[in-house]
Amino acid sequence: MTDEQYMRIALRLARRGLGKTSPNPMVGAVIVRDGRIIGRGYHRYYGGPHAEIDALSSATESVEGATVYITLEPCSHQGKTPPCVDALARHRVGRVVAGSLDPNPLVKGRGMEILKKQGIDTRVGVLEGQCRALNEAHFKYMTTGLPLVTIKFAQTLDGRIATATRSSRWISSPQFQRVAHRLRATHDAILIGVGTVQADDPELTVRLVRGRNPVRVVLDSGLRIPMEARVIAGKEAATIVASTRRADTEKMARLRERGVEVLLVGEDEAGEVDIKQLLKMLGGRGITSVLVEGGGRVITSILRQRLADRIVAAIAPKIMGSGIEAVGELNIGDVAQTLKLSFEKVRRVGEDVVIEARFEDERSATKP
Amino acid sequence: MTDEQYMRIALRLARRGLGKTSPNPMVGAVIVRDGRIIGRGYHRYYGGPHAEIDALSSATESVEGATVYITLEPCSHQGKTPPCVDALARHRVGRVVAGSLDPNPLVKGRGMEILKKQGIDTRVGVLEGQCRALNEAHFKYMTTGLPLVTIKFAQTLDGRIATATRSSRWISSPQFQRVAHRLRATHDAILIGVGTVQADDPELTVRLVRGRNPVRVVLDSGLRIPMEARVIAGKEAATIVASTRRADTEKMARLRERGVEVLLVGEDEAGEVDIKQLLKMLGGRGITSVLVEGGGRVITSILRQRLADRIVAAIAPKIMGSGIEAVGELNIGDVAQTLKLSFEKVRRVGEDVVIEARFEDERSATKP
Repeated sequence: MTDEQYMRIALRLARRGLGKTSPNPMVGAVIVRDGRIIGRGYHRYYGGPHAEIDALSSATESVEGATVYITLEPCSHQGKTPPCVDALARHRVGRVVAGSLDPNPLVKGRGMEILKKQGIDTRVGVLEGQCRALNEAHFKYMTTGLPLVTIKFAQTLDGRIATATRSSRWISSPQFQRVAHRLRATHDAILIGVGTVQADDPELTVRLVRGRNPVRVVLDSGLRIPMEARVIAGKEAATIVASTRRADTEKMARLRERGVEVLLVGEDEAGEVDIKQLLKMLGGRGITSVLVEGGGRVITSILRQRLADRIVAAIAPKIMGSGIEAVGELNIGDVAQTLKLSFEKVRRVGEDVVIEARFEDERSATKP
Repeated sequence: MTDEQYMRIALRLARRGLGKTSPNPMVGAVIVRDGRIIGRGYHRYYGGPHAEIDALSSATESVEGATVYITLEPCSHQGKTPPCVDALARHRVGRVVAGSLDPNPLVKGRGMEILKKQGIDTRVGVLEGQCRALNEAHFKYMTTGLPLVTIKFAQTLDGRIATATRSSRWISSPQFQRVAHRLRATHDAILIGVGTVQADDPELTVRLVRGRNPVRVVLDSGLRIPMEARVIAGKEAATIVASTRRADTEKMARLRERGVEVLLVGEDEAGEVDIKQLLKMLGGRGITSVLVEGGGRVITSILRQRLADRIVAAIAPKIMGSGIEAVGELNIGDVAQTLKLSFEKVRRVGEDVVIEARFEDERSATKP
């Protein structure tokens, strides 16, 4: 088998950690000797052993001289666990093949450097695109300090997310609801506007699939959120209300009493919560990925500031005519000025079509 | 081989007539004796020999006692050509298998009846769904007198077909332009509003693929169309301007001088051209399929009256924000009232996603 084939197995192992490792990346490792796989491992949960350690401890025989395939460069620093490069050297493995370097400024090539100095054979960049894509959020977060931002919406074929009277249940199929919950389970936080809380009163928890609940973040510059809202009353997930200095202190105190964190953020020109600053603050707390669930005002504001990385859109086989659209005024007068995406994945989910798209943007950290 | 397998071959033959047989249906035929195909044929162009005659004349040996597979019931009436059932009987074929009955009120089971009376073995309904779908327009037209109406538009992922200033070139990819021209080549007429003529001045001809030009029909209740518009000046295709009794007679005369037909149609409640009446008039002239190319007002009007059968929508990997949507006010206040579609085909064309959808409607003539 080739390096690429072993790396593919390591990638598959890595994916088992989906939704459980953040703010760490998902990582998988395979140990091979004489053409036989003698160890496998992956990073199972945040704080748990790293993939290479998991693989070493699973080895069925001595790993001396063996090749270790690992989707991401082994760490060289003391974190929650000791540096993995030390363990690899101690076990006297012969060769380490890394899918890609770790963008973490504490590592960033240093891991491979140390191994090389120990006389271990190294290779970097095998299925690199896939290895980076697997940890898209980690790559963006480590290089910018900002979480990866994914906008999600469900619309009719004619582009409406709700009727003029804000009726939107259900535009998408039950099968897409499950996809939406899976998206929640694989994001560290969900971001919505207070308007959506008032209109729909969503719980924003993961119910239709297994997985952990993301932090719920509500944009609410005027602190209008009703105390009886499900995101306040429901305790299954943490809630952060992002507001501004204008916020009523009495209401703030009441929210805090209920265990809700009120985060005071700077204002943008419109006097609303400065979303970019908020994202930085969330990043500072180890939130590496944010799922934006609407409504239109929040989505528009994020797009206007070019803060989004991805869009997941469900298109339902329905025609509504005039209603509410996902995206509002972006001041685009000519088709040439539209924001460019690439459609990465198109699939049918129930009776809907789901498009996963990425903004074409040179700043994208996940491009090798 | 089974009846179904032979019918599949006949279906493939039938499709060769695509875009050339209207207002006749596409039909294919295969003649089989002792498990060998001894004749093949299809309806090649309007006015030409029918499929079974084409197949009989291609036969490499006597067809006596052979089985004739034909996608549509053989005709029993004198049209541009003599009744096909007579030819089949004269050739003393042993068995006739028809994909489906012909909805043409002049035939409608009579063809098979006559064959049976002549002692010929018959079977009806093999791959019936596919045989009917192939001639969707024919089935609707024969049962209702109305052409099949397909709405086509290209929009951004956020559902805009143009900017507020009506810039729409090009939202879709060059590859979709070809698909759009192919759609034109397979429709008898194109319908657009005079607003689109004024904004885009399209030629509405088939240029990017081979095929015949459909009749161009412009909805123009006030007869505002500019004399220098390409659909007036360009003579590659016939143009019909559909207007009302309010139309200025002097302008009407000038248009007629230029070889443009001005069709006076009744008015709807809004004082605009009554589109349903127009479709009936077009049907009366043998137009069995109409492609609606916009703009939004025409599309909305057609949807409001539930006159559309299909939608072909290109979704481009672009975000525009506020602009013009394909569909305007339909007075739908609740998601449950939206018009239901089914997505029949979803594919990537260039960088776009193209969705072919059908309205879920019990009146649909193509449902077996």
